[in-house]
Amino acid sequence: MCRWLAYSGSPVSIEDLLYRPQHSLIDQSLHSKLGAETTNGDGFGVGWYGAGDTPGVYRSIEPAWNDRNLRDLSAHIQSPLVFAHIRAAIGSAVQETNCHPFRHGRWLFMHNGFIGDFHKVKRDLVLAVDPSLYPSMEGSADTEVMFHLALTFGLEDDPPAAVSAAVGLIEEVGKKHGIEHPIQMTVATTDGETVWAFRYSSERNSRSLFYSTDVPTLRALHPEVEILSEVSDESRLIVSEPVRDLPGAWNEVPESSYGVVQPGQDELHPFTPRAPEKPTAVRAEV
Amino acid sequence: MCRWLAYSGSPVSIEDLLYRPQHSLIDQSLHSKLGAETTNGDGFGVGWYGAGDTPGVYRSIEPAWNDRNLRDLSAHIQSPLVFAHIRAAIGSAVQETNCHPFRHGRWLFMHNGFIGDFHKVKRDLVLAVDPSLYPSMEGSADTEVMFHLALTFGLEDDPPAAVSAAVGLIEEVGKKHGIEHPIQMTVATTDGETVWAFRYSSERNSRSLFYSTDVPTLRALHPEVEILSEVSDESRLIVSEPVRDLPGAWNEVPESSYGVVQPGQDELHPFTPRAPEKPTAVRAEV
Amino acid sequence: MCRWLAYSGSPVSIEDLLYRPQHSLIDQSLHSKLGAETTNGDGFGVGWYGAGDTPGVYRSIEPAWNDRNLRDLSAHIQSPLVFAHIRAAIGSAVQETNCHPFRHGRWLFMHNGFIGDFHKVKRDLVLAVDPSLYPSMEGSADTEVMFHLALTFGLEDDPPAAVSAAVGLIEEVGKKHGIEHPIQMTVATTDGETVWAFRYSSERNSRSLFYSTDVPTLRALHPEVEILSEVSDESRLIVSEPVRDLPGAWNEVPESSYGVVQPGQDELHPFTPRAPEKPTAVRAEV
Amino acid sequence: MCRWLAYSGSPVSIEDLLYRPQHSLIDQSLHSKLGAETTNGDGFGVGWYGAGDTPGVYRSIEPAWNDRNLRDLSAHIQSPLVFAHIRAAIGSAVQETNCHPFRHGRWLFMHNGFIGDFHKVKRDLVLAVDPSLYPSMEGSADTEVMFHLALTFGLEDDPPAAVSAAVGLIEEVGKKHGIEHPIQMTVATTDGETVWAFRYSSERNSRSLFYSTDVPTLRALHPEVEILSEVSDESRLIVSEPVRDLPGAWNEVPESSYGVVQPGQDELHPFTPRAPEKPTAVRAEV
Repeated sequence: MCRWLAYSGSPVSIEDLLYRPQHSLIDQSLHSKLGAETTNGDGFGVGWYGAGDTPGVYRSIEPAWNDRNLRDLSAHIQSPLVFAHIRAAIGSAVQETNCHPFRHGRWLFMHNGFIGDFHKVKRDLVLAVDPSLYPSMEGSADTEVMFHLALTFGLEDDPPAAVSAAVGLIEEVGKKHGIEHPIQMTVATTDGETVWAFRYSSERNSRSLFYSTDVPTLRALHPEVEILSEVSDESRLIVSEPVRDLPGAWNEVPESSYGVVQPGQDELHPFTPRAPEKPTAVRAEV
Repeated sequence: MCRWLAYSGSPVSIEDLLYRPQHSLIDQSLHSKLGAETTNGDGFGVGWYGAGDTPGVYRSIEPAWNDRNLRDLSAHIQSPLVFAHIRAAIGSAVQETNCHPFRHGRWLFMHNGFIGDFHKVKRDLVLAVDPSLYPSMEGSADTEVMFHLALTFGLEDDPPAAVSAAVGLIEEVGKKHGIEHPIQMTVATTDGETVWAFRYSSERNSRSLFYSTDVPTLRALHPEVEILSEVSDESRLIVSEPVRDLPGAWNEVPESSYGVVQPGQDELHPFTPRAPEKPTAVRAEV
Repeated sequence: MCRWLAYSGSPVSIEDLLYRPQHSLIDQSLHSKLGAETTNGDGFGVGWYGAGDTPGVYRSIEPAWNDRNLRDLSAHIQSPLVFAHIRAAIGSAVQETNCHPFRHGRWLFMHNGFIGDFHKVKRDLVLAVDPSLYPSMEGSADTEVMFHLALTFGLEDDPPAAVSAAVGLIEEVGKKHGIEHPIQMTVATTDGETVWAFRYSSERNSRSLFYSTDVPTLRALHPEVEILSEVSDESRLIVSEPVRDLPGAWNEVPESSYGVVQPGQDELHPFTPRAPEKPTAVRAEV
Repeated sequence: MCRWLAYSGSPVSIEDLLYRPQHSLIDQSLHSKLGAETTNGDGFGVGWYGAGDTPGVYRSIEPAWNDRNLRDLSAHIQSPLVFAHIRAAIGSAVQETNCHPFRHGRWLFMHNGFIGDFHKVKRDLVLAVDPSLYPSMEGSADTEVMFHLALTFGLEDDPPAAVSAAVGLIEEVGKKHGIEHPIQMTVATTDGETVWAFRYSSERNSRSLFYSTDVPTLRALHPEVEILSEVSDESRLIVSEPVRDLPGAWNEVPESSYGVVQPGQDELHPFTPRAPEKPTAVRAEV
């Protein structure tokens, strides 16, 4: 049910991130090891920061493994902050407007998992989206609604609080509809400077999520890996499943927690959903 | 802003309808004469009745004129009732879920025109859709919402009343939002037996709509047109713009009216939008 | 490297063939058990006989498992003779002109396997195609060339001899270029009446191929399988890998042999490649 | 029959080239004024130089006017040398491998026009392509063959001579087949430093081609046009039809001639096709 990768650090070519490593994200589109689905062939998306005020986004309904444009663009675009996502659709249409990452202004958002029994709760959740944001939802994916809920609850000001509110509302609405496990997720979001990555599920048995060991330690462990000598000390990868089989390279994000990758010291915190007291849109009243 | 064609009569190959005539619908995808847009290249769709309980639908985001599958399928499918639509998108995404005809059970629905300032009224209109129908909206097109409003207001029981209610609501909501001309439309809908075709716009200056002269008269006028000797007396075409330049063949549907093509005598009636007294969903309360 | 299915018998809906059975061809597009590749997501095609002088063909570059048009068309088309193919590309572009089945007049042709080191032999093989057939090659797939070689060598008159000549030439040209195993194949071809299915490879270790047990025997073995009571005694399936796990239902086509499914008694014969004495096009000299 | 644009100069965003100007290339995809076809909706392509040893290429079968990825990529990619092409197919399949610009190593090549009766001459022309280049032809477009002929005849060493030889061969082969007008073309090619643009047709009535007036003159004429103050003196556009209606801005490339845009003084020369003495591939003999 999807795989994703987030990179923050020295500018690298997207090709280095997506194609070069052993068991790369592109390999995972055909043969995921840890995913709920082994094939993630229902479209993909890449977001990156560079020229322009907003991040670039390239999304397609083709499988990532056979898309020649992705291959070519990857080799010709370099960026210090990249989101990439491969999709395994579970019901909703295969169309570009359902592909991750989703974008709003300078923000990107992507997700592995699902909102349980989405057809039952979709209307209630959509009603809680700020009316001013409503028209920008163009697809039918649960993640697009989750993103717009997070925006409604202040993603641009306090991402952990906003995601906590969105997930809290999804839990609350799901339970009202008698859904045992309303949400399953690993989520990444960024404003182009900082990356927040969340791991959570109602059943406390969340999809896998890993972050890379700091670069100086990795360099000492694996002096033979060339790319490590090229990237800055602060470079960091967060992935649904490891993309290289390097001993010591990958650390699991603990259940019900979130990480912050930022200039300076990165952070890891517990994550607790907390439904907003007034689940109707707060932005709408401004 | 789209062109469409509805056929009811003796079974014919879809190719005969879409490709054979001079100035065919496929020609119109490249060079419409009467359309608000000369090019209708943002996807297309065909719906037909045959095997199966529900009509078949083939929709694609490619331009109709270069889609080889459409050409091939058209030559291999025969049907007594065909809807075909070519799209000129005005803002909403080019994706199959935005292509006409839309389908619900045995019903098809297609539209040329637009809901004015749709982004302003979309949320209010969507809220009026019966919650049980809500999850089946998958795209972002105004027509999909209009169709689901008509279903909410009883399309399957009384199509003219349901379309009148849907359009009435669109007028009412549009005016509440200060929109001068909330709707512009020619619409066709069918249950597989009868075809209803509506022509209406807030400004009383509606997109063109024509129906063919009855076959016996046409045969007398144009004995040289072969297809006329092959189809039954009751066969009828309704089109956004004439597909053959046959004198006496085409009659304009009058402003603010609707036609009914059915077994027995066809009908033509005035059309008046009438907003439902209680614009919230009636089906929801059952 | 592709999976395929050929059906001949009582008219059935394509949906019954492609979607209904356990481990159906559509399942195999995601999870093949016996294929060289587990995922066959690089496009697909369906060919069928019905209205029209030539068979209908619907081909797409989308994965078969997520193509809604395929699902819908399958439910609305019935045919007594169906070819279906799901593709795993190995190098050549993912484009409709590379999707099977290929068509020429009333003939269809599809293939699982490959011509070894195709880039080395392509030019020599293409030169042997009859010049009058040359312009109808539109893609870059090895199978399209193989089909046109078979047509050059008389496919329409004597299919086993023509395929033997085509494969013989491929072996000969491959060996001239130092290729150890020039060909790997299971191939099906039909004129709309008879189906010929070939299993062969240079290394005598060919891709799997099965044909179904005759219907009367199957009915006696599995009275509970409903579809068996609906199809005629002569109905037959040939598949890359079994589509239902029915004991006694499937028989392997032996190495280096071909089967003929036809009105009356079906046949099974040994297959031997035999390069034409004059490998240049014979049709060209007419 | 296609429209194209070539830019060489200060790095600009592709969006500035393709979308910003009045009557931009994107507008021309819907409404060309000077083209043989008013609609150019059968795919498009963009090539640019930047990161990487070879130029980036993005090609798609969608119409340029509705492709959101093109819009987004254009805003996020800047380059000093850009080729862009919109296609109106005349017969050959709409597939990415038929979209321009074509690429070989550091070279790009694009074309407006056609090889007359291509199906009659294709085989002879393809046979003249160097066998080592043969496998890299993946589509069915006449331009791909013309490009590979030019490569065969030394495009990388002497572009005008190589194009002259390719066109000479096309004339010769065409005449042998009794084709009155074997070629119609405007062609652009580049190695990333210099751009060569050719205008020629057998009937000496070639498709339109324009180059922009030098920037210092344009600045003096139109001080109000902002972009002119941002680009270097040597910046130059070559286009199938003018993209802004600026008096004094556009100069027609004369019939049967070619221009060279390069560092230093640009050049304009007469163009004469000259078939190679030995039309078989010269590279093959190395």
